Amino acid sequence: MSEESRKERRVLVAVDESDESMYALSWSLKNIIFQNSSDTLILLYVKPHHHDTYTHLDSTSIMDDPETPGHVLSPKASAAIKKYSQDVVDCVLQKSKRMCKDLENVKVETQVERGNPRDVICEMSRKLNADLLVLGSHDYGVMKRAFIESVSEYCYQNVKCPVLIVRKRKPHAGPGN
Amino acid sequence: MSEESRKERRVLVAVDESDESMYALSWSLKNIIFQNSSDTLILLYVKPHHHDTYTHLDSTSIMDDPETPGHVLSPKASAAIKKYSQDVVDCVLQKSKRMCKDLENVKVETQVERGNPRDVICEMSRKLNADLLVLGSHDYGVMKRAFIESVSEYCYQNVKCPVLIVRKRKPHAGPGN
Repeated sequence: MSEESRKERRVLVAVDESDESMYALSWSLKNIIFQNSSDTLILLYVKPHHHDTYTHLDSTSIMDDPETPGHVLSPKASAAIKKYSQDVVDCVLQKSKRMCKDLENVKVETQVERGNPRDVICEMSRKLNADLLVLGSHDYGVMKRAFIESVSEYCYQNVKCPVLIVRKRKPHAGPGN
Repeated sequence: MSEESRKERRVLVAVDESDESMYALSWSLKNIIFQNSSDTLILLYVKPHHHDTYTHLDSTSIMDDPETPGHVLSPKASAAIKKYSQDVVDCVLQKSKRMCKDLENVKVETQVERGNPRDVICEMSRKLNADLLVLGSHDYGVMKRAFIESVSEYCYQNVKCPVLIVRKRKPHAGPGN
């Protein structure tokens, strides 16, 4: 590990409410991020469009989000959904930051964006000049994966920096977990 | 970086004659492998079937390799191709080991296997209990990538351990290279 490579290294970890993303963060903290280094760890949470589209509604408006069918919600319901959505974000980021509490000189930043996760992750990797993008990955079968793995597949194909895909091993998968 | 995670960490790097695989190894040496750690770095070279199929021929035999059309070769031509094939392997492994010469306590092992690279890389990741698989990746366009990226795509989908895909950035691609 050369000193040169320890300067201003920016590691972007996409976090969400899944165990897989928390495992990816945990693995990175053990294997990628260096204590007392000048690394910057950026925790990125992307709210999908549907996450809080309701928050843009008043009691009579129709959702104009292209990814979501139209609904009418009362201000009370809208506020409840907005609160729930924000609680999820806060919970994930708080949990992620707790996992980073032992890092000393490493800067930990959080970023919350909204949009299609795969597009936002790629865009933020560029905007934030990430030197490494870390993504969690599910251990699905081939058929299920064809749909669910699209974020990590898309990102690794479209992000310019190195991409680390951390698949949470099943307990029986053997050593190295 | 906890002490625990530094114990017996086995990093498998697939190397070949491409600049991309050498860049992936170089990036890993700066960002993944730790000086004075007890990491084991395994350099894996996979000879594709066609690489030295000729070496199994005598002057009258027909190739029986399912992936290669049949040919008849003189012993001299067969020997020349065999030597060239071995020279390529030796050259890649020597270059790779030279890049690792500054590592102190890190064990560096080399492994040469023969077969379909994507299958062999996945198989060896399991057999060698790799904690991390590192692959180089080309920066091709979408159409070209659809064919050429199959090794890294297949591996990241089929290997149980974390997979680091290092794409060699084009010079204009910005910082973090």
